[in-house]
Amino acid sequence: MTNIKDLAKMAGVSVTTVSRVLNHHPYVSEEKKNAVLAAIKASNYQQNINAVHLSKGKTQLIGVVLPYSDHPYFSKLLKGIAQQALEQNYHLVLFQTDYKECRELGALRMLKQKQIDSLIICSRSSDWSTIEEYLPYGSIVLCEDVKDRQVSSTYVNHYKIFYNALEYLYKKGHQRIGYVIARKSGTNSQYREKAYRDFHTKYQLSYQPDYIIDECLYFEDGEKAINRLKKMKTPPTALLVTSDQVAAGIVVSCQTHGISIPNQLSIIGFDNQPIAKMMNITTIEIPLLEMGRSLFLQAVQSDLTNKELSSRLIERDTVSYKEKNK
Amino acid sequence: MTNIKDLAKMAGVSVTTVSRVLNHHPYVSEEKKNAVLAAIKASNYQQNINAVHLSKGKTQLIGVVLPYSDHPYFSKLLKGIAQQALEQNYHLVLFQTDYKECRELGALRMLKQKQIDSLIICSRSSDWSTIEEYLPYGSIVLCEDVKDRQVSSTYVNHYKIFYNALEYLYKKGHQRIGYVIARKSGTNSQYREKAYRDFHTKYQLSYQPDYIIDECLYFEDGEKAINRLKKMKTPPTALLVTSDQVAAGIVVSCQTHGISIPNQLSIIGFDNQPIAKMMNITTIEIPLLEMGRSLFLQAVQSDLTNKELSSRLIERDTVSYKEKNK
Repeated sequence: MTNIKDLAKMAGVSVTTVSRVLNHHPYVSEEKKNAVLAAIKASNYQQNINAVHLSKGKTQLIGVVLPYSDHPYFSKLLKGIAQQALEQNYHLVLFQTDYKECRELGALRMLKQKQIDSLIICSRSSDWSTIEEYLPYGSIVLCEDVKDRQVSSTYVNHYKIFYNALEYLYKKGHQRIGYVIARKSGTNSQYREKAYRDFHTKYQLSYQPDYIIDECLYFEDGEKAINRLKKMKTPPTALLVTSDQVAAGIVVSCQTHGISIPNQLSIIGFDNQPIAKMMNITTIEIPLLEMGRSLFLQAVQSDLTNKELSSRLIERDTVSYKEKNK
Repeated sequence: MTNIKDLAKMAGVSVTTVSRVLNHHPYVSEEKKNAVLAAIKASNYQQNINAVHLSKGKTQLIGVVLPYSDHPYFSKLLKGIAQQALEQNYHLVLFQTDYKECRELGALRMLKQKQIDSLIICSRSSDWSTIEEYLPYGSIVLCEDVKDRQVSSTYVNHYKIFYNALEYLYKKGHQRIGYVIARKSGTNSQYREKAYRDFHTKYQLSYQPDYIIDECLYFEDGEKAINRLKKMKTPPTALLVTSDQVAAGIVVSCQTHGISIPNQLSIIGFDNQPIAKMMNITTIEIPLLEMGRSLFLQAVQSDLTNKELSSRLIERDTVSYKEKNK
C-alpha cells in the first residue's frame, strides 16, 4: 500500500511537503501541491484514519453497553442513541453484555485505551467504584438516577412511577398487586422494590414477596408469569408489568388459560410500545427514543448534567374497577 | 497526559528505550526496564490504542450494517454476530441505515479509512458496483446469495424456501395465496417474487399482484395486513408472512376482526421466533443465530466462502386443509 514516502517520491517533493498538503498547511507552492495531489490520485492513496485519530486524540466512536440487543426496550433505546449519533456524525461500538461484568469491563478498558471517546451504559452490571476508576479517561453516561455523582445521566423516576401506578390500582379497589420485572438486582428495580414496600406500609397491606415475578423479558415470558400466578393460592388481582412485550404475552396467555382480562386480572404495561396500543393495554409511557437521544448528547458534551424525563399513564382496556372484599 | 517523552525523562533513559520496553523488545537492560516500568506505574501512563492500531494496521473492530436495530429479525442476527465477536475478542461498530444508501456508504468509507477491519452487511441498499469499489480495502460479507462474486456470504435459499412453502399450501388445497414482506426491493424479496411467479405459472393459477403486501415489519403491522385483506373482493385463503412478529400480529388482529384462523385464513410465519412457538404459529425456521455467527467468522477469515444454511418447516396450528372450489 502507498505511504507518505511513496507519495513524496512520486511527486518529486519532500515528505514534509506531502504532510503539509495532507494537513492543508498554507505554505506550499501551487506547483508542489498539484504534484502531490496528482500522486495521491494516481496511487489511490488513502490516509489511515487511525493516524488522524492518534493526532487528534478522538475517534468519533461512542461505546454503548447494553445487556441484550434483541430486547425491545434496549433496541428502542439504542435506536434513539443511533439516530442522534448519525446526526452528529458519530458511530457506535456495541457491547452486548448479557449482564456479565467482565464484558462491561471490556468496554471500560476501550475507553481507557482511547478506542472510543465516551461510553453510554444503558444498564449497569459493575459497582459504582469500578465506574469511578475509569472516569478520568472519558465521559461515562448512565441511564439511572445517579445524582451527586460525577457522571451525566438520563433516566425516569422509577420510584415515583411505580408508587403512582400502585396507588392508581389501589384506588381502583386492588389490594393484592404483584409486579413482573426482568431482574431484581438493577438500580431501577431497587427503586421499584422500595416503592412497592413503601406502598404496602402506607396502606397497611400485607407484603407478599412471591408477588414479585422476575426473569421476564420477552413476549413469551408472559406464559411463565401466568404459570407462576396459577400456582398461588391467592394470586394478585392486578399486575404491573415493566415491559409491554411481557404484558402482551400475559394477555395472550390469559386467553389460553381462560383468565378474563381485566375482570380476573388487571394489567398495566410499561414503555407504550406499539404492541400495547394494538392490544389495548393500559401502559406507562417511557420516552425511550428521547432518552436515547439525550444519553448520546450527554456522551459528547463536556459538562455534567442529570436529566429526569417524565412518563405518563395511558389508560386503555386492561384495568378494571374491583370491589373491595372487606 | 503523560506521553513517551515524559516517561523517558522520568526514567532517565532515551525515548528509544521506552519504546523498546513498551514493545517488549529484548535488548533492554533489566535496570533500565525497571526504571521505565516504575515511571509507567507512577504516571499511570496509558498507551493510546490508536497508535497500536496504526502500527498493526488492525483495529479489532468489525462494522455491521443493518436497516433497523429494533427489528426482531435483525436484532437476533446481530445477537449471533455479537456472540461470535465476543468469543474472538472483537467489537462491533453499528451502522443503522433505515435502508438509506448514504448511511451504508458511510460504513464503506470507514472500511476504506481502516477504522474497521471488515464490514458485514446484513441487508444491502447500495448497488453491487458500489460494493465492488470498496472490496480492495477489507473484507465485505453479505447475507444474501452472491455466488460468483468476490465476497463471502451466508444466506438461506429464499427462492427454494418460498417455492416449497407455496407448494405445501397448494397441496393443502389453497389456490389463493398471498404473502407479506418488509420491502419489495431487496435481493431476498426478488428471489421470493420469482418463486411466487414460477409457482403460479407451474400450477396455472392467476397471479394477483395485490396479494403481495409489503411494508410490514413489526407485530403491529399485522393489523395493517388484515385491513388490506378486508378491502379485497376475493382475499387470499392463506398467507406466507416473512416475519413471525407480523404473523403474530395478524393472528391477534384476526381475533379482533372475527376472522377464524386457520379456517378462514391460514398463516405460515418465518424465523421460528419464540412468539411463534407461544402462539402455535406454523413457521419456517431460519437459523438466525447460526447465520450471525457464520457472517462474523467470514468477516475475520481471509478466504472467500459462500455458505447456504438450511431451513425447516415447523407445523403447528395455523394452516388448515382447504377443499378446492372447482
